Amino acid sequence: MIAATGSVALDTTRTPSGTAERVLGGAASYFAYSASFFSPVGLVSAVGEDFPKSYWEVLERKGINLEGVQRVAGAKSLFFDSTFDLDFHHRTANATELNILSQFHPVVPKSLQHAEVIYLGTMEPAKQLAFLEQFPNRKLAFMDTIDFFIENQTNELWRTIKAVHGMIINDVELGKLTGTSNLVRGAFNLMDHGPSFVLVKKGEHGSILFSRAHGIIPFPAYPLENVVDPTGAGDSFGGGFVGYLASKKGKITERTLKEALVYANVMGSFACEDFSLNRLVNLSREQVEERFDHYKRMLLF
Amino acid sequence: MIAATGSVALDTTRTPSGTAERVLGGAASYFAYSASFFSPVGLVSAVGEDFPKSYWEVLERKGINLEGVQRVAGAKSLFFDSTFDLDFHHRTANATELNILSQFHPVVPKSLQHAEVIYLGTMEPAKQLAFLEQFPNRKLAFMDTIDFFIENQTNELWRTIKAVHGMIINDVELGKLTGTSNLVRGAFNLMDHGPSFVLVKKGEHGSILFSRAHGIIPFPAYPLENVVDPTGAGDSFGGGFVGYLASKKGKITERTLKEALVYANVMGSFACEDFSLNRLVNLSREQVEERFDHYKRMLLF
Repeated sequence: MIAATGSVALDTTRTPSGTAERVLGGAASYFAYSASFFSPVGLVSAVGEDFPKSYWEVLERKGINLEGVQRVAGAKSLFFDSTFDLDFHHRTANATELNILSQFHPVVPKSLQHAEVIYLGTMEPAKQLAFLEQFPNRKLAFMDTIDFFIENQTNELWRTIKAVHGMIINDVELGKLTGTSNLVRGAFNLMDHGPSFVLVKKGEHGSILFSRAHGIIPFPAYPLENVVDPTGAGDSFGGGFVGYLASKKGKITERTLKEALVYANVMGSFACEDFSLNRLVNLSREQVEERFDHYKRMLLF
Repeated sequence: MIAATGSVALDTTRTPSGTAERVLGGAASYFAYSASFFSPVGLVSAVGEDFPKSYWEVLERKGINLEGVQRVAGAKSLFFDSTFDLDFHHRTANATELNILSQFHPVVPKSLQHAEVIYLGTMEPAKQLAFLEQFPNRKLAFMDTIDFFIENQTNELWRTIKAVHGMIINDVELGKLTGTSNLVRGAFNLMDHGPSFVLVKKGEHGSILFSRAHGIIPFPAYPLENVVDPTGAGDSFGGGFVGYLASKKGKITERTLKEALVYANVMGSFACEDFSLNRLVNLSREQVEERFDHYKRMLLF
């Protein structure tokens, strides 16, 4: 069982392919949905009264444990409105309304307390740490973060980093956090502070896993001809990675790490093919395995 | 034998690691030096009176056939002065003096006329085509180009593209040439015009090979902790790719293409580790093989 916390949101997303209004979004939604292809997931988050029942059911039908998702009367859900530019390289935030997420304190329901794999989606680092410490049996904990906390809650962030096994972070944020744009130096610097893994997300350029025990593993992204909406691709990527590792019951070998990276890239690629979680919702495990095999064949020689 | 044309230059390069003044540079120098680790190479280019004898000897000692390099009395060599920013992501041209290259017409010496593998480094596309047509036995021809010719000599460029087997081009230039920032669509669009291969260079993010017969093969860059000067990395990458394919006597299989891509990434990575061609000059074939093996182990599972 993976216990995951982070944002569940309503997104309005404008891309060259169209506009989707107030659709299901949030890093934790994508992460949990993607991870649950591989392992049971429990989600801890909060939504407002405006959160549609149909979105709740999307997550529930996938078998995600939602006991930890507070539905707060009189409150509004996190809302994010953004626009991607023509080539999907830049995203402009039009509106960010934290709403219920600003007061949210993750409380772990009984059914998740024995989780061994923990995922700390982006939120205030002190809250991430408080969440983590509620799992006495934790064996593998990963976290993500964003610029805002790197710049404004630096000390709290480093305290959380010291407590996790791995960080999943994008390349620009790793540079800001470690003061170097060289990913190799940045990742090893980060590992000096505690984590055994740093998984650097580079969007369409794939990812590089740094592991204290297994060295450097750079994997390309799965090439896509049709990108509809990259929202949540990085979180779906993280879900594939953590979800697959969780399914291996903590047996981390070079082989399982590499397989997890391929699943990560596969899940990230599917997430881009439609708005919201739509492609993931219409995705079968067989299609995941097909793309896994194709990815493997591309690299194999 | 590979017959290669393109620029041989004097470079002044300023990077966060230091400044190198009037050192040996030029796309064709890097390409030829890198390719000659795998296959004999003949170079066709031009330099001025100011081109140091010691630089000539660097190329000569590697066994590169220089009969086609004109040394023009009273003329000056191509000179390029540029500065890389702190994170090596952007390069600013401080001065570009075409000098002898502006009047250069590649003339193929007898000793190269039977070459079967041809490389057309960046220059006016009409000159590239005129060079290509001097090889009656050509079996495999690759070309590169830059923004300037995409924007200003579009028709001539497409004429040359139709005549080659493969294009080696960076991601931004492919986008400009094909009018789409989606590399998959851009590459297949390009192949519709003639070439069987498009090899897209993405710098530190590696490369993607598109092949009409073998599909899409994305490979990551070899991760580097110490980058001194990325000048010529893409040309050294191309040299590794074409050089290795040439050594296979035109037997192009999925396996030789993938091996060629690994050699390409390996040679590109070495080129970044020192100014000018210095790291390539101090490189043994054993070190190339060591990095090849390491690269392969990184991806293998």
